[in-house]
Amino acid sequence: MKVPLTKVSIISESLLKEEVIELIRKHGATGHTLTKVEGEGSEGRHASDWGGRNVKIETLVSSEVADAIMKDLSDEYFEDYSVIAWLVEVTVLRGDKFLKK
Amino acid sequence: MKVPLTKVSIISESLLKEEVIELIRKHGATGHTLTKVEGEGSEGRHASDWGGRNVKIETLVSSEVADAIMKDLSDEYFEDYSVIAWLVEVTVLRGDKFLKK
Amino acid sequence: MKVPLTKVSIISESLLKEEVIELIRKHGATGHTLTKVEGEGSEGRHASDWGGRNVKIETLVSSEVADAIMKDLSDEYFEDYSVIAWLVEVTVLRGDKFLKK
Repeated sequence: MKVPLTKVSIISESLLKEEVIELIRKHGATGHTLTKVEGEGSEGRHASDWGGRNVKIETLVSSEVADAIMKDLSDEYFEDYSVIAWLVEVTVLRGDKFLKK
Repeated sequence: MKVPLTKVSIISESLLKEEVIELIRKHGATGHTLTKVEGEGSEGRHASDWGGRNVKIETLVSSEVADAIMKDLSDEYFEDYSVIAWLVEVTVLRGDKFLKK
Repeated sequence: MKVPLTKVSIISESLLKEEVIELIRKHGATGHTLTKVEGEGSEGRHASDWGGRNVKIETLVSSEVADAIMKDLSDEYFEDYSVIAWLVEVTVLRGDKFLKK
């Protein structure tokens, strides 16, 4: 019933929301949660410089999918955008439905 | 001072908020945090189909209480509702106050 | 590319926001994310008693910085304020930029 999965958390500028959701879907993420957040990045930029609020996108996936998402995020956005992403190991109720078929 | 605990995160339709809080309280959760979120579930439903925003409910409990909450959530909601729940191991400052007496 | 770090999550009354951000910065946190949340604490106080919404402050740091932040939070706020804080081990994409130089 409980399945170990990886939660991918991505914080990006709101304007990248649809692109990032498309990216995680492409790798097999079957769902996601969006939270409006504000942030100040490691380069010291203030929230107000980001042209609005940021968004946190969370998805529960296998560790393989998580790694693929991280690689893709790094290749696509890390050079030019204020994207932060991290992984945490979680135990998910009925987690089997989150696994890529 | 720092105590290992389990964080239970539950995402549900907003209309289930009070019921879910009652459920976690029944098992001894002494506090919780609510965050408004939007989501798209594993069945591909869009946020707009959910009749409004969703809510993330988080609580810090012992692993035994976490398991009891997960079982109860599964029994009560998983058949008919878009409830997602996961556990993560955390270290809590003054975590002893979150343990069921 | 991926670096193990500690995510510090702090939930406090909104009025402490700037103080808490200053506290984490002092210890070398290079960024943070803010989320508006509501909560009921372990003393049973209701969100409405808190004089407004609460804030969740998250930052990614080394385990040493996390411990220093936790100690400082405990010393400064735990006696008189409804502050909750916990640590979780995460893997961060390009996490090296979050490490104190």
